[in-house]
Amino acid sequence: MKVNGKNYRTVWMESSSVFLIEQNLLPFKFEIFESKCYKETCLSIKNMLVRGAGAIGTAAGFAMTQAFLQAPKDGFWEFVETAKKEIEATRPTAQNLFHATNLVFEAARNSDDPIKSAVETAQAVADKDAEDSHKIGEFGNELIQDGFRILTHCNAGWLAFTDFGTALSPIYLAHQTGKNIFVYVDETRPRGQGARLTAWELQNEGIPHLIIPDNAAAHLMQQGKIDLVIVGADRIAANGDVANKIGTLEKAICAREFGIPFYVAAPTSTFDESCPTGKDIPIEGRSSEEVLYQTGPDENGEMHKILVCSPGSDAFNPAFDVTPAKYITGIITEKGIIKNSIVRIIDN
Amino acid sequence: MKVNGKNYRTVWMESSSVFLIEQNLLPFKFEIFESKCYKETCLSIKNMLVRGAGAIGTAAGFAMTQAFLQAPKDGFWEFVETAKKEIEATRPTAQNLFHATNLVFEAARNSDDPIKSAVETAQAVADKDAEDSHKIGEFGNELIQDGFRILTHCNAGWLAFTDFGTALSPIYLAHQTGKNIFVYVDETRPRGQGARLTAWELQNEGIPHLIIPDNAAAHLMQQGKIDLVIVGADRIAANGDVANKIGTLEKAICAREFGIPFYVAAPTSTFDESCPTGKDIPIEGRSSEEVLYQTGPDENGEMHKILVCSPGSDAFNPAFDVTPAKYITGIITEKGIIKNSIVRIIDN
Repeated sequence: MKVNGKNYRTVWMESSSVFLIEQNLLPFKFEIFESKCYKETCLSIKNMLVRGAGAIGTAAGFAMTQAFLQAPKDGFWEFVETAKKEIEATRPTAQNLFHATNLVFEAARNSDDPIKSAVETAQAVADKDAEDSHKIGEFGNELIQDGFRILTHCNAGWLAFTDFGTALSPIYLAHQTGKNIFVYVDETRPRGQGARLTAWELQNEGIPHLIIPDNAAAHLMQQGKIDLVIVGADRIAANGDVANKIGTLEKAICAREFGIPFYVAAPTSTFDESCPTGKDIPIEGRSSEEVLYQTGPDENGEMHKILVCSPGSDAFNPAFDVTPAKYITGIITEKGIIKNSIVRIIDN
Repeated sequence: MKVNGKNYRTVWMESSSVFLIEQNLLPFKFEIFESKCYKETCLSIKNMLVRGAGAIGTAAGFAMTQAFLQAPKDGFWEFVETAKKEIEATRPTAQNLFHATNLVFEAARNSDDPIKSAVETAQAVADKDAEDSHKIGEFGNELIQDGFRILTHCNAGWLAFTDFGTALSPIYLAHQTGKNIFVYVDETRPRGQGARLTAWELQNEGIPHLIIPDNAAAHLMQQGKIDLVIVGADRIAANGDVANKIGTLEKAICAREFGIPFYVAAPTSTFDESCPTGKDIPIEGRSSEEVLYQTGPDENGEMHKILVCSPGSDAFNPAFDVTPAKYITGIITEKGIIKNSIVRIIDN
């Protein structure tokens, strides 16, 4: 997608270098980081220069390829096997990471030209991720009518994938196909991914939008100013319950209350058949520091970390919540839209 | 209530001086401002050193009294009448302000000793506000069982009144009567009154609490961790709809969804019979700056105003929302609890 009018992917490879958008600097600075060896790419994943399921997978595939390119003739396979373990240790809970390293490694192992196969497979992983996101956009775009005002939560945009994203992909496709749309962006406390990343993406694509405090979503729904809600997903249980950024549950409950369609956009790889229901999805508790402090630039561009709460009080900071399937109108995947078959009871 | 172990009211008068807790400095600094003339007290109201319906009323009554104390013998009534208009112009939308200035002025006008009557009436206004808050606490305390975990939104604490507050008053009374309680405090973006003021109040009273991102409330309800929700009110329509800080509607909808009692605490003066329903209450739109920027101290105590959103994106910032009566279990007033007679439909 576009940054300052030019098209980018979040991660890409040219000869032996991996290039990544330095996401820790966003939205205040746009910089490309060039990683010249697999160890540097590992660090980039670990330090979250690249983040989000799809983008991590692509970066891991490229890191694996860099290991093949760097491996000495003597002890070639030993070198790449060690590298594989190092790459997989960077973000051990990221499913896509293992998927990518395994694909690249296996393709190379079964090939007469392991390096060539690694390069091609890693590129295929990247392209597949971008294509899946684009397909989610195409299916989701069918839900969007001209003039729609859409609410989204957190950042399930192209920065979290190789390109296009999930929740934002239908919005990009709607915009590209000439529909007039308007996006309300939940700021998404405590980390502010909506205010910082989603708003940044939308602005670069020239899509009209406003950031809102998370508290304002139900008010807008009540005023008839939201036609559709689309969010991403971190994990989807077998029964259709969805784990996503904290606050998603609140928006879903309110959307049902006001009869507004609530869609989740996610590739089918997000479904976890080993989780029968949302109750089986563990919720990560994060540091209270994220609630108590905020970081950003002052008017001179100097960064500060400031306290925004009463000194001495502590905070509770669950990273995700689980939205039961009954609140979800449908799930937009790269294979089509899964409509929720559970009857929705609207009582107002 | 207590600050550093010592009891205070938000505003009080000693001889001709009005003393106010400088609320603009909270929670990072606790300072008392001494206002020696009515014009200084006017500025304190205008610049929000004192804020909240009840506290503004008390401050205005004291300011009116200061005008009587300062008035020259020649042109005595002309002086106080001009002062009255000046006081009333400080926060022209604050109902309690006019109520207080009128009470003090009329008492003085109908008295043989206007100054004495003004002093006594202003003190009575302050005492009545504190007593009403205390009664709200007593009635509300009946709803609280030992071990309850209570959620509150924004700051309807003693800092907004002369003492005790509204939503927090039942919590203070429960604590004082020996009940073990725990309070979850919505940070209440964008201005953070929960994180800054409510947390500060609770900490000074030694009541166990945690600040949560506004997004986390529904998750806690779903986990069975909230027994009761109590919030304040800015205005209550004749049909029981309640205007309060943005986000209140969202919490009310979620509370009903999870079958959790949702109470509003407010003095009867908050009822506005001229508003038939919540739809007739105008919603103040505030500056987008409140969403885009945050102010607070760095680790050295130096204050900074930082940008927390993507540069160039704008924000929408409605100050209040309207919670329809159907989501409200009851309204706790100084005269008793008005139970909502509308049947609540719980569908989960």
